Amino acid sequence: MFSFFPTTRVRPSPFFEAAVAEGMVAANVYNRMIMPTSFGHPEAEYWRLINGVSQWDVGVERQVQLKGPDAGKLAQILSPRNLSNCKVGQGKYVPLCNHNGIIINDPILLKLADDLYWFSIADSDIWLWASAIAAERKLNVQISEPDVSPMALQGPKAEDVVAHVLGDWVRTLKYFWFKETEVEGIPVAVQRSGWSKQGGFEIYLKDGSKGTKLWNIFKEAGKPWDIGPGAPATPERVESGLVSVGGDTDDDTNPFEVRLGKYVDLEVGDDVVGIQALRRIAGAGIKRHQLGLVLEGDKPAPLGLAVEDISIRGNLVGKMTNCVWSPRLKANIGYALISSSVQVGETVLVNRASGLCQAKLVELPFL
Amino acid sequence: MFSFFPTTRVRPSPFFEAAVAEGMVAANVYNRMIMPTSFGHPEAEYWRLINGVSQWDVGVERQVQLKGPDAGKLAQILSPRNLSNCKVGQGKYVPLCNHNGIIINDPILLKLADDLYWFSIADSDIWLWASAIAAERKLNVQISEPDVSPMALQGPKAEDVVAHVLGDWVRTLKYFWFKETEVEGIPVAVQRSGWSKQGGFEIYLKDGSKGTKLWNIFKEAGKPWDIGPGAPATPERVESGLVSVGGDTDDDTNPFEVRLGKYVDLEVGDDVVGIQALRRIAGAGIKRHQLGLVLEGDKPAPLGLAVEDISIRGNLVGKMTNCVWSPRLKANIGYALISSSVQVGETVLVNRASGLCQAKLVELPFL
Repeated sequence: MFSFFPTTRVRPSPFFEAAVAEGMVAANVYNRMIMPTSFGHPEAEYWRLINGVSQWDVGVERQVQLKGPDAGKLAQILSPRNLSNCKVGQGKYVPLCNHNGIIINDPILLKLADDLYWFSIADSDIWLWASAIAAERKLNVQISEPDVSPMALQGPKAEDVVAHVLGDWVRTLKYFWFKETEVEGIPVAVQRSGWSKQGGFEIYLKDGSKGTKLWNIFKEAGKPWDIGPGAPATPERVESGLVSVGGDTDDDTNPFEVRLGKYVDLEVGDDVVGIQALRRIAGAGIKRHQLGLVLEGDKPAPLGLAVEDISIRGNLVGKMTNCVWSPRLKANIGYALISSSVQVGETVLVNRASGLCQAKLVELPFL
Repeated sequence: MFSFFPTTRVRPSPFFEAAVAEGMVAANVYNRMIMPTSFGHPEAEYWRLINGVSQWDVGVERQVQLKGPDAGKLAQILSPRNLSNCKVGQGKYVPLCNHNGIIINDPILLKLADDLYWFSIADSDIWLWASAIAAERKLNVQISEPDVSPMALQGPKAEDVVAHVLGDWVRTLKYFWFKETEVEGIPVAVQRSGWSKQGGFEIYLKDGSKGTKLWNIFKEAGKPWDIGPGAPATPERVESGLVSVGGDTDDDTNPFEVRLGKYVDLEVGDDVVGIQALRRIAGAGIKRHQLGLVLEGDKPAPLGLAVEDISIRGNLVGKMTNCVWSPRLKANIGYALISSSVQVGETVLVNRASGLCQAKLVELPFL
C-alpha cells in the first residue's frame, strides 16, 4: 500500500468530488483516470453490493465514439462478434482482438444511432487503435472521446432506486439495452449493465459539469434502500467469474482461453480485424484455459503483486491471475490461466510469496 | 492523497522490490505499471537530482519492439522525424502523431540493428497502435514488448557513478546514443538519456529477474557520490521545460503547439502517419502555444487535480496544464497552453480552486 498523488496526466472523473465527499480512501488508475476503490469499509461495501445497492464512480469507463456514415461499418470491423442484428438502443459485450486474435479490451458496444456508436471500454487505448484502423482503411467516420462518464448502481435493490428516479419503465429494460433521457435536466443514457453479477444499471452522464449533482440525486433517492458508496469489487467479480482484461489476460491471450469464445462469431466478414487469426486458433484448439482455484487455508491471504506460478507434479503449468478472499465461500479464490491438459478436480501448487500453497481447480463461476 | 492497492492489472517493475527496500512511500501508475514517485523526502530528492546523483525505477518506460525485415520501414512510417541518418547505436527523441497530426506519445527511438528498433515510450498504448498500422500495411515485422526495463541515474554526478561501474567509455557516449553490454553478467543497454535536464544515463535491464541485483550494484557503486533514490521530479522537469504528453497535451494537441516542431520533418515520405495533417497544420499556423507561467505568491501552492482555466480581460484564452513549487525560483510555476494571440510578458488570471490567481507569461524553459 502506497500513497497516490494525482497529477494532470491522471484525470479525475466528473464524480470525483462526490467520491471524496463520500469518504473515498483508496484509488487506482484506469484509462489514465482516478478510479475510487474503497471508502474505508470493505466488508460493508461488499455486503451492500450483495444485499442492497451500491453507488460507483466508474467514469474511468471511457467511451470511444464512432460517428459518421461508416460508423457501423467500423464497429463491425473492430468487433469479432456479429453486430448485424444490433438495434438502436441495444448494447453488446464485445471482446476486441488485435490482428493476431489477442484480446486487447472487452467493452460494451452501444448503438445510439445508425451512424453513432460508443465502445464503453476497459483499460487500454482503444481510441488510438480504432483511429489507426479507420484512417488506414480511409473510412468516413470521426473517432473521439465524448464527454460521457458512467456512474453505476449495482446490487439487488439498484432497480428500485433507478425506477424511483426515472420511472418504472427502467424495469423493462433488457440486459445491456439503454435509453437516452434526462434526470432533472441532466442528459444521461441509462443502461442495464455494470461490472458485477448482482444486477443494476449504469447511468452515462453526458455533461461532465453535472457529476456531483447527478451523484447526489441518486444518493438521496437511494436512502430508503440504504444506498452507499462502493466500487467494482474484486471479491464479487471473482466469485461471479467476470474477466479483467489486462489482469486475467496477458499479451498472448485469445478470447477462447478466457471463456469469451461465445462472443466471437467466426463467420463474420473477412474484413474484421483478427478474424483470420481467430479462425485459425479455433480450428487448432486452445493450449490454455481459465479455471477457478480454491486455495487451502481459512484466513484471508493477500494477492501477490504479480501473477503467481502454478505447478503440478513439479511442472510449471500456468499462472494464478488473481486471488481474493471470498466472504461468501469463506476461502481464498482465484483464477488459473493454465494448460488445457490440466482439468477441474486436480490439485495444483501455487508459488506464493508466503510459500507453496495447495489449490483445487474448479469450474467458473464460483457463484 | 489516497491509498493505492495494486492489483495484477497494474504490474510492478523489476526494480519494485528495490524501490520498496529504499523506502518508497508514494507511487503513480504509468503504462499500467507502478511508478515510484516519492521516498518520503521530496526536498532532499529534488536537491540530490540538482547537485548529486539520483537513482530512479523507470521500468514503466516500456519498449515497443519492432523486429524483422520491415522494422526500419515501420519505424519511419510511425515517426514524423526523418530517421534516414539514424545509426545503429543511436537514439532519437520522436513525437509520435496519429493520422490527424495529434501527438499521442513522445518516445526515444533506439536503433539496435537494421532490423531491430525499440520505442521507449511515454504513457499510452503505442503497442496497439503500431501493431494495427503494421498489420493494415501488411509489413513483415513482429511487434512485441520485450523484457526490457529502464533504470535511470540522473544528476551531475551520474556520469561518475556509471563510469565507475562500466568504465570511462561511457563518458564519450553522445546524447541518446547507447551501447549494449553487461554488468556483472546482467545484460543491459546503457544510454545517455533520462527525463531530466541534469544529465545522466538510462540503464535498460534486459533480464527482468535481475532488477534488485542491478539496482544494488549501482546503489553500492554510488555511495562515494551520496547516491539515493528518487523519481522523475515534477519541479525539475517543469523548470527545465520538458513536456509530459497526456498531462501538458490534450486530445487535440499537435507537436508545433508544445515546442516539438523541431522534431517534425515535413519532407519525410507521404507514407508517414500524420504527415499530411502536420503539413497542413504547419502551413496554416498554430492557434495555441505553450508558455511558462510564474504565479503570484511566495508559498508552495498545490496543483489542482485538473487543468485550470486561464483568462485575460475576462476572456478564456487557455489552460494551465501543470503547476509546481520551484525550489530554485522560489515561485509557483507552470505551463500555459494558450491562444497564440497571447504573448510572453502579459499577465493572466488562473482560475484556481483557491480563487483567481495572477500569473505572468514567460518563455520556456524557466532554467
